[in-house]
Amino acid sequence: MTDQKNIRISAQLMRDWARKCLEQAGAASELAKAMAENLVAADLMGFRTHGLMRLRYNLNCLQDGSSRSNGEIKVLSKRAAVQLWDADLLSGLYVMPKAVEAAMAMARHCGTGTVVVKRAQHVAALAVYLEQATEQGMLVQMMCATPGQQVVAPFGAKSAWFSPNPFAIGAPTHGQPILFDVSLSMTAAGKVRKAIAEQQPLPYPALITADGNYTTDATTFLADPASVLAPLGGEQLGYKGTGLCLFSELWTMGLSQLGRYQEQAGLDANTVWVQVVDPSAFGDLDEFKNQAQAMVDGIHATTPINKQQPVRVPGEGAFKVRQQQLQQGIEYTAALWRQLEKIAQQTGIQLPAN
Amino acid sequence: MTDQKNIRISAQLMRDWARKCLEQAGAASELAKAMAENLVAADLMGFRTHGLMRLRYNLNCLQDGSSRSNGEIKVLSKRAAVQLWDADLLSGLYVMPKAVEAAMAMARHCGTGTVVVKRAQHVAALAVYLEQATEQGMLVQMMCATPGQQVVAPFGAKSAWFSPNPFAIGAPTHGQPILFDVSLSMTAAGKVRKAIAEQQPLPYPALITADGNYTTDATTFLADPASVLAPLGGEQLGYKGTGLCLFSELWTMGLSQLGRYQEQAGLDANTVWVQVVDPSAFGDLDEFKNQAQAMVDGIHATTPINKQQPVRVPGEGAFKVRQQQLQQGIEYTAALWRQLEKIAQQTGIQLPAN
Repeated sequence: MTDQKNIRISAQLMRDWARKCLEQAGAASELAKAMAENLVAADLMGFRTHGLMRLRYNLNCLQDGSSRSNGEIKVLSKRAAVQLWDADLLSGLYVMPKAVEAAMAMARHCGTGTVVVKRAQHVAALAVYLEQATEQGMLVQMMCATPGQQVVAPFGAKSAWFSPNPFAIGAPTHGQPILFDVSLSMTAAGKVRKAIAEQQPLPYPALITADGNYTTDATTFLADPASVLAPLGGEQLGYKGTGLCLFSELWTMGLSQLGRYQEQAGLDANTVWVQVVDPSAFGDLDEFKNQAQAMVDGIHATTPINKQQPVRVPGEGAFKVRQQQLQQGIEYTAALWRQLEKIAQQTGIQLPAN
Repeated sequence: MTDQKNIRISAQLMRDWARKCLEQAGAASELAKAMAENLVAADLMGFRTHGLMRLRYNLNCLQDGSSRSNGEIKVLSKRAAVQLWDADLLSGLYVMPKAVEAAMAMARHCGTGTVVVKRAQHVAALAVYLEQATEQGMLVQMMCATPGQQVVAPFGAKSAWFSPNPFAIGAPTHGQPILFDVSLSMTAAGKVRKAIAEQQPLPYPALITADGNYTTDATTFLADPASVLAPLGGEQLGYKGTGLCLFSELWTMGLSQLGRYQEQAGLDANTVWVQVVDPSAFGDLDEFKNQAQAMVDGIHATTPINKQQPVRVPGEGAFKVRQQQLQQGIEYTAALWRQLEKIAQQTGIQLPAN
């Protein structure tokens, strides 16, 4: 590919290709299948920074041993409604569906089920794991932290303490589920890197420079000393984002007992809190869906600020993108496609023709 | 009191006085005791809008029957780790400590314990219920919604859908616990009313007018059509606040099956999600505290933007205010004291001398 035209290609072909690449890098068959599936699932939903853009990273991790190519997950402790797992550097793309499954089984007995997973390599987009629960009529909440990464400042600081903290929920309705997946900082590191690559400023001041100023200048993220991400709420309300980041890190790193106390700098595996709630423990599932659907309908019925932009419910954008890409193929930028072609050359596994 | 000087008075004297007033309004002894205690607890921690400022409201509710003066809480459904309660209009100030207690008992067996309470009258400040769990070495999370109230706009709208949604967490450390209690909107209705009373603008644009403009003008909240509260994240990132409000309302109104689907306008009782996590289900409690303490110490060690304002951990401000007020007496403004004097005149129960 030398031109700049985007590529359209079937999700199934890309899944198969990615799986073969991951297998060649050493991943056991079941592992490679889950990794490929969940990376492509992120592309399908429009979470581009967590899709095949990260295939190279996953291949590298398998090859240098920072992601295990096979093996078992260890259950370190359990009670009726909770389990602590050590993924022992297996990919989160493979471990997370198992954690959701185990949480659902506990929720059926206890009303809620929680799995805290430590040392899961590259969990990618939390959004892709939510429907596994909502399709079974369950609510799910996920939080993810990275013990070895510190890029988000607490409120009032110009140096970082928190890791990026994605937060996600899913809930069933009578129609498509409510799906929500965001970072608890003002922006994510991936978006800053994208802005740098595209030589664009950020759309709003989400970085705090070493001088203590909020800035839209993405290049400050590469300066020395570097700028840091502001917590959600920003200059006025960043104490709210700080508390939400603490919620994430206490419930993940704290409960898993693997975090900053150990001072294991450089450990970039993820720690994840997965909790499933079974609404049928509280009453009739259909009654829950009535309430959830009333929220969807009510939000749609609010008055938009801009008549051209109807008010949306979280998840609707992702469903729309997925529906379109399932019909027309996933759209990859020419730049990403060139990266994938390099992988194809290195592995000798030919990319599918578009 | 005719001058404008603030009053300093012992917490215990105010508790006793408020209890007597509540008993005279019909509240059973145990109920009046808990209500007085938790209103004064909010004053002690500096949550002024949820302290004795709301005594008048609570007395009115008891007198007009919108808050029950005695009776039992009904357990509507349960599994090993969850319970759904109907408070049947008993005060949340009385019901919440019982919900935290029940959640802790389930957490000891199952690892987590959850109580969803519907129809609790005036829960007030979530912050005052957190230490009951942290003192037992447990983590606690609370969310509260109000089915009959709609004042927060979803992102992109200029009309309201969500109720005010306070969100709180508590976690033990080796020192004082981490306590966090905020609204998931940019500001709370009580703060807007305070700004109106003081004829001040809001410190940042947290309201959306009927024209769709973000404004600091608090008086627009009383206009017709009225302005609405913006979700956390505001003009750029309000989709994050919208998702967080949905988290609160799905997990409270949705699970309790009492919400907008019923169209019960005017029901201003609260629905609350209380979840306790027992860290000893995951490993040693002391190991959890090591991690939590490392977070506290690490946040303190970040570089402040303003050298005069050290970076704080959530809860520290409240502890400092409480410590000071326990020693020197609670500080009440002259304006609030005059309101309390009116109650004293009406009830014939004399205010303690300051």
